[in-house]
Amino acid sequence: MLITALREGKAVADYTKILLSEDEQPTQWYNVIPDLPAPPPPPLHPGTLQPAAAEDFAALFPEALIAQEMSADSYIDIPGEVLDIYRLWRPTPLFRARRLEKLLDTPAKIFYKYEGVSPAGSHKPNTAVPQVFYNAQEGIKRLTTETGAGQWGSSLAFACAQFGIDCEIWQVGASYRSKPYRRTMMEVWGGKVFSSPSSETEFGRKLLAEDPDHPGSLGIAIAEAVEKAVEDPGARYALGSVLNHVLLHQTVIGEEALLQMAKVGEQPDILVGCTGGGSNFGGLAFPFLREKLAGKMDPIIRCVEPAACPTLTKGQYRYDFGDSAGLTPLMKMHTLGNGFIPEPIHAGGLRYHGMAPLVSHVYELGLVEAISIPQRECFAGAIEFAKAEGIVPAPEPTHAIAAAVREAIACRESGESKTILTALCGHGHLDLAAYEKFLHEGFQDVDLTEEELARGMASIPDIAVG
Amino acid sequence: MLITALREGKAVADYTKILLSEDEQPTQWYNVIPDLPAPPPPPLHPGTLQPAAAEDFAALFPEALIAQEMSADSYIDIPGEVLDIYRLWRPTPLFRARRLEKLLDTPAKIFYKYEGVSPAGSHKPNTAVPQVFYNAQEGIKRLTTETGAGQWGSSLAFACAQFGIDCEIWQVGASYRSKPYRRTMMEVWGGKVFSSPSSETEFGRKLLAEDPDHPGSLGIAIAEAVEKAVEDPGARYALGSVLNHVLLHQTVIGEEALLQMAKVGEQPDILVGCTGGGSNFGGLAFPFLREKLAGKMDPIIRCVEPAACPTLTKGQYRYDFGDSAGLTPLMKMHTLGNGFIPEPIHAGGLRYHGMAPLVSHVYELGLVEAISIPQRECFAGAIEFAKAEGIVPAPEPTHAIAAAVREAIACRESGESKTILTALCGHGHLDLAAYEKFLHEGFQDVDLTEEELARGMASIPDIAVG
Repeated sequence: MLITALREGKAVADYTKILLSEDEQPTQWYNVIPDLPAPPPPPLHPGTLQPAAAEDFAALFPEALIAQEMSADSYIDIPGEVLDIYRLWRPTPLFRARRLEKLLDTPAKIFYKYEGVSPAGSHKPNTAVPQVFYNAQEGIKRLTTETGAGQWGSSLAFACAQFGIDCEIWQVGASYRSKPYRRTMMEVWGGKVFSSPSSETEFGRKLLAEDPDHPGSLGIAIAEAVEKAVEDPGARYALGSVLNHVLLHQTVIGEEALLQMAKVGEQPDILVGCTGGGSNFGGLAFPFLREKLAGKMDPIIRCVEPAACPTLTKGQYRYDFGDSAGLTPLMKMHTLGNGFIPEPIHAGGLRYHGMAPLVSHVYELGLVEAISIPQRECFAGAIEFAKAEGIVPAPEPTHAIAAAVREAIACRESGESKTILTALCGHGHLDLAAYEKFLHEGFQDVDLTEEELARGMASIPDIAVG
Repeated sequence: MLITALREGKAVADYTKILLSEDEQPTQWYNVIPDLPAPPPPPLHPGTLQPAAAEDFAALFPEALIAQEMSADSYIDIPGEVLDIYRLWRPTPLFRARRLEKLLDTPAKIFYKYEGVSPAGSHKPNTAVPQVFYNAQEGIKRLTTETGAGQWGSSLAFACAQFGIDCEIWQVGASYRSKPYRRTMMEVWGGKVFSSPSSETEFGRKLLAEDPDHPGSLGIAIAEAVEKAVEDPGARYALGSVLNHVLLHQTVIGEEALLQMAKVGEQPDILVGCTGGGSNFGGLAFPFLREKLAGKMDPIIRCVEPAACPTLTKGQYRYDFGDSAGLTPLMKMHTLGNGFIPEPIHAGGLRYHGMAPLVSHVYELGLVEAISIPQRECFAGAIEFAKAEGIVPAPEPTHAIAAAVREAIACRESGESKTILTALCGHGHLDLAAYEKFLHEGFQDVDLTEEELARGMASIPDIAVG
């Protein structure tokens, strides 16, 4: 049937992936804020506790990005130069996971939007490219950033190569030493990578004096990158998640997925996405949330976080710092406390103490749900996925896959044929050491204790607002 | 203009990549042999020196593949089950390398067909999937193979996972120890990986007794895989390049590229492809050679080989063994001698002493050209490519890229606007150690000495046929 149809050159009802042509590429980013029933609480200046103004961000970000961060417009045009670069990998494919459905013996339909086709192998270039573009537009010659596992650092290095901007990346020391491949990838694109803490900054030198083998942390790396950006008027800093403008740029994922689902006449009954800082989730979910708020569809939208860092499910909705050193404005978000140190799980991209303020806000409004899943279940699901669908997922989206598998198994048991949509936000080619550990040594799932949680919460500043 | 057109939803003349929908996927493989002005010399039984018969291959390969190896049909239908799996990544994109053209300031148009979107990250699954399918059809429960760098081993493991067949891979010991990520990838798909020489085989035990730290070689790994396949009637052996049926399966690359070029009204003036065993080159080139032989286009078709293993440009066209242990039938091919040991260059997939008999034959007929390029020029080209186009290439296709860059620069100098087509047969995510060495230590290009060449040639059997 299918094959005969193919041979006869006929269009077929059957399909594995749904592609969009380049002229179907979205040309605007979607800002969910104007469509929400209430606006999100603003970031606060930590000194005055008043809403932060544009100038409070001026040493860190270019004007165009600050304007996007605070924009009240529903749609923002994607510049042509950015679209040109997006077209190196966008539109990305939407897959129907037929082989996984068969393996799970489920009546559910599983769709996944695959962002691993980007040069850096994840969704991060969707925001790295416009961030670098706007900096270049405003004459910035040098960008600094931090990276943990390296997905964000490599994406920014790739984007900087496109616009001839110097890229300096502070990589958490422990990752710098254990993940040499990611570092090399950044260097191939011309990035300069420092092990953090480094002797390049005052803060780094102070920490190295205390402990020459300091393993570093994301908070420390942020502090170093910010220090270097602020001291040079021709430099700025770039952040790969959490902020409104980052989530805005990622909405190309959801806009494409909406169009792709429509092409095959499908709507999700449930959408699941992994949440670390929230950008991959927001990118997929917000365009669907728009449709839900407009009454055009009614999917359940669910955040999936690691059991080791359960920001939404066990955190508090309070004003907290974005970094561990207290350098950023205060943001109202679900947080485990800026001093919370999660277990060293392999999904390094999900080990953030807070959640994007915008994702926190829609969760607080009851527009999305949240669950947490332990690491072992995630990798077990990823192995099944890899065998069935071919792609070896990054550790972060194994959480999304595990959640989709749970739903598909529930459908097998109930007999319901739900349509499940998820995002496979990156491949795991540079994370195979985690798979090696899972296959040969196994993981242990450690429950967070009340004491660990309380210790993290104690680091949240005690502020009588919001 | 482009952007306005995009916003108005218009089709645009401009494009970055040319995609095919699943219903445009080729449904037949192309066999070039019937279209050639003379048939290729047959393989010979090493004992009788008579043309090898189907039964001479029966212990190694299933009947369907032996039939394909010897087929006189121009087209062979791709089974529906194989098409289903191909659709996990096929049709693959054809890119117009606009950013590389700009970087090189060339009037040339550069197109590259990208095979790195497959689960294993190269063109190898194009043949792994049908090979496993035909084995499964004939009741085979277990496949053995060898792998060097790991591209082929991981592709076969992925394919075996699709059909529930056990996959056992003998990986060259030095690679097994230095490339743990590739091994883990094979294990994720359920492959069982042995460091070769291994204690699993008689041949391996003999070598380990002589040297417990034996680094292994491709020839030894082949011998071990063949030994295990032959001793079990329910097992067969699989080869990832060189043979006719392997090149046949790879022609989906060229068939798609033909269709994609036609969609944008282009024909290649020159086609360049890297050659190791010859399967990626043959896969891209043979459909274009058909068009050339039919007088429909007239591209120059050029093989690009590493200067360290210059089979076509410095080898002899003679009957030789496919392996270093003399277990295979004799094949007429360009060879440096089955005892030739190439320098340990990073393009492990191009370190084969011979060339596919079919590629050798068309070269001997004058239908294709050949050049060799040293490793340093290849990696320098790859870094420029990665910065411009995003994708970090595997070491093997850096040769194809370097050749395309040479042509593009010649066009800049001559002012000609040639259309160049090449294949980017895989990504380099698991080869970043080679880039690290290139960036931090640099490579040395060592010229092959006449003595080294003569030593290799002395290993070619002295046979008075062909």
